[in-house]
Amino acid sequence: MSRSNVQLKTPKGTRDWVGDDLLLRENIFKTITDVFQRHGGTPLDTPAFELKDVLSEKYGEDSRLMYDLEDQGGEICSLRFDLTVPFARWLAMNGNVTHIKRYQIAKVYRRDQPAIARGRLREFHQCDFDIAGVYDPMVPDAEILFVIVEVFEALGLNIVIKTNHRRILDGLFAVAGVPDAKIRSISSAVDKLDKMPWEAVKKEMLEKGLPEEVADQVGEYVRRSGNIFDMLDELKSNEKLTANGDVSAGIADMALLASYLKAFGIEDTVSFDCSLARGLDYYSGLIFEVTTQGPSTPESRSKSPAIQVDSIAAGGRYDNLVGMYGKRPIPCVGISFGADRILTTLKPPTVKDSKNSSISRNLDVYVMAIGGKEFDGLLLERMAITRQLWKAGIRAEYMAKAKPKPLQQFKAAMGVPLAIILGQEELAAGQVRLKVFKPDVDEEKEPGQLVSRDNLVEEVKRLL
Amino acid sequence: MSRSNVQLKTPKGTRDWVGDDLLLRENIFKTITDVFQRHGGTPLDTPAFELKDVLSEKYGEDSRLMYDLEDQGGEICSLRFDLTVPFARWLAMNGNVTHIKRYQIAKVYRRDQPAIARGRLREFHQCDFDIAGVYDPMVPDAEILFVIVEVFEALGLNIVIKTNHRRILDGLFAVAGVPDAKIRSISSAVDKLDKMPWEAVKKEMLEKGLPEEVADQVGEYVRRSGNIFDMLDELKSNEKLTANGDVSAGIADMALLASYLKAFGIEDTVSFDCSLARGLDYYSGLIFEVTTQGPSTPESRSKSPAIQVDSIAAGGRYDNLVGMYGKRPIPCVGISFGADRILTTLKPPTVKDSKNSSISRNLDVYVMAIGGKEFDGLLLERMAITRQLWKAGIRAEYMAKAKPKPLQQFKAAMGVPLAIILGQEELAAGQVRLKVFKPDVDEEKEPGQLVSRDNLVEEVKRLL
Repeated sequence: MSRSNVQLKTPKGTRDWVGDDLLLRENIFKTITDVFQRHGGTPLDTPAFELKDVLSEKYGEDSRLMYDLEDQGGEICSLRFDLTVPFARWLAMNGNVTHIKRYQIAKVYRRDQPAIARGRLREFHQCDFDIAGVYDPMVPDAEILFVIVEVFEALGLNIVIKTNHRRILDGLFAVAGVPDAKIRSISSAVDKLDKMPWEAVKKEMLEKGLPEEVADQVGEYVRRSGNIFDMLDELKSNEKLTANGDVSAGIADMALLASYLKAFGIEDTVSFDCSLARGLDYYSGLIFEVTTQGPSTPESRSKSPAIQVDSIAAGGRYDNLVGMYGKRPIPCVGISFGADRILTTLKPPTVKDSKNSSISRNLDVYVMAIGGKEFDGLLLERMAITRQLWKAGIRAEYMAKAKPKPLQQFKAAMGVPLAIILGQEELAAGQVRLKVFKPDVDEEKEPGQLVSRDNLVEEVKRLL
Repeated sequence: MSRSNVQLKTPKGTRDWVGDDLLLRENIFKTITDVFQRHGGTPLDTPAFELKDVLSEKYGEDSRLMYDLEDQGGEICSLRFDLTVPFARWLAMNGNVTHIKRYQIAKVYRRDQPAIARGRLREFHQCDFDIAGVYDPMVPDAEILFVIVEVFEALGLNIVIKTNHRRILDGLFAVAGVPDAKIRSISSAVDKLDKMPWEAVKKEMLEKGLPEEVADQVGEYVRRSGNIFDMLDELKSNEKLTANGDVSAGIADMALLASYLKAFGIEDTVSFDCSLARGLDYYSGLIFEVTTQGPSTPESRSKSPAIQVDSIAAGGRYDNLVGMYGKRPIPCVGISFGADRILTTLKPPTVKDSKNSSISRNLDVYVMAIGGKEFDGLLLERMAITRQLWKAGIRAEYMAKAKPKPLQQFKAAMGVPLAIILGQEELAAGQVRLKVFKPDVDEEKEPGQLVSRDNLVEEVKRLL
């Protein structure tokens, strides 16, 4: 094997995880999993790639961001783009499952423009919780919104959940005069209203072939948001809108939802925003997106009003996705938490973060040996004693050298609470020294207490 | 979106994980992680794909099994083939890390011929523990072998660890007369001796251009295995072999290792097998492979002596891999546990396993409502009470229907230890019924005890 001059990096938009970041990520996963399990969630794990056909025609304009595997003879596959479509594929494959709350925490892949500082990566983590099955309208939907509130309460983040309803949105477009064939593409333009000024969104609509008066009417309809009860009153008072079947069906759903949110006491965390559209094609009912204030103060936000605040969780109802696989349809609603953006919000990345990230192991005991010039290092004895500790479930280590120097061993023991120190004479008497590390003490001058080898494990356990 | 007639399956050699299998897999991961942490291991997570150049020239003949991503403009990437090369890439990238015990549990990808019944998949899990850093010879290697013993003791599997040394193997080949250029390819033929009879291996060597007398000499040298001390005596007594520098250096290593294994008390679990070669190119010193008896009895094995027993863990020393990236070299030794094969050994797959696998959620309380004909189902009250339970960390569920039938609710509560039953009259008096499910009781006739709503959470916690 020859030396190669390969580029030493991870692929664009991906990163390694180690140390504090990995610990924080695991804590986020644990917090989210606890909530999912509290609601009766069952875990599912699916392959990182799927048959390309399984993923096709599910993601609308975003499909171009899919990672395809090379055709190496055999099946044509793509990396998963989210966890929702694989869940739907699994439901379609497993006819015995008619009702389930399933959760999955896994990496997904999108060839998007990465912005690592904002937690936008090409390989990123989604934490999904979905309720599948025929139930009464909006009851599972309300539970999903409650799950969102619980997760962010547990994580200590203030949030707003923006909601909308695909049927209301479709109805508004129809009443405004958008042709059916253009609804999905106009919808994706409207979805950008939280990141772009109205003028830019309108321009996109005109470029997509919408007459200006229709675009203005769309703008008037969708640029409304607020408290869910107020918004319902406003929509209900507009006869032109309520005459549309989609709008009135959506209003009925949202009114039911509002009553359930009240029972959960979370109606103030939820807003109703007619401009929320969500890009993915498969949503069919309620849709929602979670934003947080993040690190920027209201002042700094007012200075740059066009700042892009990415959502940290999003989801919705998709009643037709499972049925697309040709088997029985199963209505579903679910939420996907973006763990990387949540992590970035909780701990904004600092300069050179990945290099300096402290990599610490958790050890209970460091086993060392100290002696004079003729000293042989007692490696076999250090091994035998460490073995005793390991067998007792104690986390322990020794220096993997035959004759390590004292200083070397003390340095390696930094941060470890206990040390066992072997010496030739003590060992001959069946004893070792057991030492509790204390801050601000010259460690080499504090010899520790003598303990019999036979009581060593109990003594260590007592001190830990 | 139209109905598509896509094939409803996961890609060849991949599978979904749910229910009992997923639970068992998580338990295996937990057991292995505990051992890794006991030895001071630090977790690392790397992307599922790497730049193709990073993986190139590391895997010898096996490279053809690599999954490549399609060139969609941008970097050329491949799915990771193992966790060892990404670890080496990470070490090369992070110059501040000179010594580390790192562990990683993750999926890896190989386009191999799948044999799902034997736990051989194209997407499978490796659990890796590696010790990187300059230490004294064979000390980290011995610890790795002890980690193996601890893991399989904890999992309850009897094992044998076959070991060999790449320098001994290379030396044997040289003494037998194998030209340098053919050593890797002859090595990969020899590695098949545990799965194929000698005649077939010999045939492969002849096809690879080895003269028959050289092949026979190789066969004589490598078909030796046994207790590590006996093998060392045998090798040392052969002057032709010990005259070779590689063989004698390897013998010195193995003798050191044997003394350390004795200090750990695991010398009887380890055998020395000169035919063990390991396919991957990057190994440079000690190599090892773990086998278990598996489900087949000695009798059934004697009937079909050619049965393939796949290894359930394997690893070795790779001192030159990190240096291949053009930075400072860091010697490493590590082990990779094959979680899927371990799982298959612990629980051989049964017919239709994946379909019938019980998918159970873990719940503490099912909240239901029962009443007469005019009864409104008390959905909002069920929501409000369940919310109280969730807030207290109790795992609870209710039927997501406005007016669910009693039988429907009792069916959904199956396997849940407690039920809270709401009734109009009890609620009016500020009370609910709390019921402990018992086997063999007609549940609907056992009404449960009345509890005040105010004490409900405490009462539930007391009963759990």
